[in-house]
Amino acid sequence: MKSVYLDQIRRQNPLIHNITNTVAAHLSANGLLAIGASPLMSAALEEMEALPQISRALVINIGTLSGKDPETMILAGKSANRAGIPVILDPVGVAATPYRREMVACLLEEVEFEVIRGNVGELAHLAGVAWQAKGVDAGEGEADVAAIARRVAEQYRCVAAVSGKTDYISDGLRLAKIHNGTPMFTRITASGCLLGAVCGAFAAVAEGKVFEAVCEACTAYAVAGELAAASLKPTELGQFGVNLMNELGALSAAVIEQNARIVYE
Amino acid sequence: MKSVYLDQIRRQNPLIHNITNTVAAHLSANGLLAIGASPLMSAALEEMEALPQISRALVINIGTLSGKDPETMILAGKSANRAGIPVILDPVGVAATPYRREMVACLLEEVEFEVIRGNVGELAHLAGVAWQAKGVDAGEGEADVAAIARRVAEQYRCVAAVSGKTDYISDGLRLAKIHNGTPMFTRITASGCLLGAVCGAFAAVAEGKVFEAVCEACTAYAVAGELAAASLKPTELGQFGVNLMNELGALSAAVIEQNARIVYE
Amino acid sequence: MKSVYLDQIRRQNPLIHNITNTVAAHLSANGLLAIGASPLMSAALEEMEALPQISRALVINIGTLSGKDPETMILAGKSANRAGIPVILDPVGVAATPYRREMVACLLEEVEFEVIRGNVGELAHLAGVAWQAKGVDAGEGEADVAAIARRVAEQYRCVAAVSGKTDYISDGLRLAKIHNGTPMFTRITASGCLLGAVCGAFAAVAEGKVFEAVCEACTAYAVAGELAAASLKPTELGQFGVNLMNELGALSAAVIEQNARIVYE
Repeated sequence: MKSVYLDQIRRQNPLIHNITNTVAAHLSANGLLAIGASPLMSAALEEMEALPQISRALVINIGTLSGKDPETMILAGKSANRAGIPVILDPVGVAATPYRREMVACLLEEVEFEVIRGNVGELAHLAGVAWQAKGVDAGEGEADVAAIARRVAEQYRCVAAVSGKTDYISDGLRLAKIHNGTPMFTRITASGCLLGAVCGAFAAVAEGKVFEAVCEACTAYAVAGELAAASLKPTELGQFGVNLMNELGALSAAVIEQNARIVYE
Repeated sequence: MKSVYLDQIRRQNPLIHNITNTVAAHLSANGLLAIGASPLMSAALEEMEALPQISRALVINIGTLSGKDPETMILAGKSANRAGIPVILDPVGVAATPYRREMVACLLEEVEFEVIRGNVGELAHLAGVAWQAKGVDAGEGEADVAAIARRVAEQYRCVAAVSGKTDYISDGLRLAKIHNGTPMFTRITASGCLLGAVCGAFAAVAEGKVFEAVCEACTAYAVAGELAAASLKPTELGQFGVNLMNELGALSAAVIEQNARIVYE
Repeated sequence: MKSVYLDQIRRQNPLIHNITNTVAAHLSANGLLAIGASPLMSAALEEMEALPQISRALVINIGTLSGKDPETMILAGKSANRAGIPVILDPVGVAATPYRREMVACLLEEVEFEVIRGNVGELAHLAGVAWQAKGVDAGEGEADVAAIARRVAEQYRCVAAVSGKTDYISDGLRLAKIHNGTPMFTRITASGCLLGAVCGAFAAVAEGKVFEAVCEACTAYAVAGELAAASLKPTELGQFGVNLMNELGALSAAVIEQNARIVYE
């Protein structure tokens, strides 16, 4: 894989507007800074028309959705669509409750998303495939993950990214599998949410090449995690969080290219 | 002490629903993951009936209570009571303001709590004992801490856990004192909140043996803190936070049993 | 520079009430604990009259302002003014949207602030000086930063602190330049927000000597950052966050005095 967009992020420092959950906010902001983007976290209804106009991408994460958040997200999403910037959806735990299911359906109705990223439980739900998720965790099922990625991409006319031991990325036509990563990602909170934000930064500088951008984003992030875990025991979860930020800070095109294990089908 | 429940948590990965404060959310989620539980943080009124039905415990922490939170907590608490899962209360800074006092009184009226965990200032208030707390900190007083634990347990028919240099756990009849721990717990934020969440995970797998579960939870957590602090200067607070997650990740029945300093009265 | 106030903070453990953003809450609470203060984070309208009466300073940070927050901040600010405790304003990203501009104008109308701290983009806006800020980042401009600090101090009758490569502190008459610090501060989120909270802790024990307190606060914080970065590569951002807490924990009058590079004009 040729890394194209990381250098663009470090050069352009794109402003990424995040409407995200209270658990992930700090980690996502730090991770975006580490790769060279400029994070702005806001869920104020009053500035949802203004912010997308000065931002380069909008990331919507429903992890702790409540109250006026759906209205806020729709307003921001529509404004971002008008402004022509990519909008990323992270449908955290969408299958867990009727409220989440309805609100995400509503978001998908009202806003055009360039990227939908989630674990297999979440994207299986969006694809209408049977799957046993647990809360905000991936859960278990027997469906074909590649088919889920393709179906979400087709159905919502977006790039779909299914995160897991292997990541599956599809735009409906193409499919990429990323074999980088570490099981330690599943042992710290909000690591998926941060990946959603990272996808936003890559999409921001990709000038419409969203599939390529998401492939590079997911590979870069998985490589950073792999390197962060390399010297650790699987129980050293605190240190993994520290190392992950170090590795995101140190990421370069060369590091990505040397470590990428991505296969296109 | 025989460790029974940690292995159950690691085996069952119980889903723990947390309604917690914005300061503690990230740490609590990470700590729950580290011990093997599956955290879900939500304070959306709209899903408070649904979430307790798929969760194994509910942890209510009032640290940054505001707006519709009391209503949300009561709805979730009642739903959890109906579902028969343990509900844990962490009455952060309850004595600090009339608002907190009233809202906690209201919660205690409407919801049955299996566990109430707090510092001595907070539980002294609930026991109706004079105590000089300071904001959300423990403060100072002369009352008998064991008596406070017993009285809270009796009055609210729950297991009461008073955290401090020595932890006191009581179900009204029995009393345990845990002599593990480290003063560094008081120098990082939300360490008490995380313990409340950990109590939830242990209670979730205890099949009604809540006193035993809370004793093991408080011992396990204090042991992890002790080990995290062992190699550090008392000022290395950043590193303590990192080590604490590492030690929670590495905790095992053997580690708990080897280090436990618990006395039953 | 003679360090006077750090020891007072460690001795008195002043309660600092923070109304802050969701990204900064955890870091700010930990940083305040590390320097010896006692943090309380609350944005509950219902306790905004009560909390300033038991606190020693109030820090208002608009980073993720929304909904009833402006009302809450004004109520708390007026209560703090009546109680005679210092109030600190951190106008995060004030120039980014009309909503932020209007709400900050409103706050400045209704509440007397002893300290206004921000980056040059934020304080340039308050001083009415042309500046190209980007979201919540400092941005670029050609104005004289010392003049901006002086003008904000005069206009709002406060101590103004402009954070950057060099910090500028002014009370309208005096001006101090602090040459300590590290570029790594700009690569982690909420480092400015934490400095605002630290200014609150120093102002709390300064008995009206607010200019001196803010000079010491900004020097102490910049020295801690400098020491935290000393052994690191510029990409080790995770470790920088850990080290910063360690160094804040280890700060002493001697460390500040040995490292301070402050010039008064």
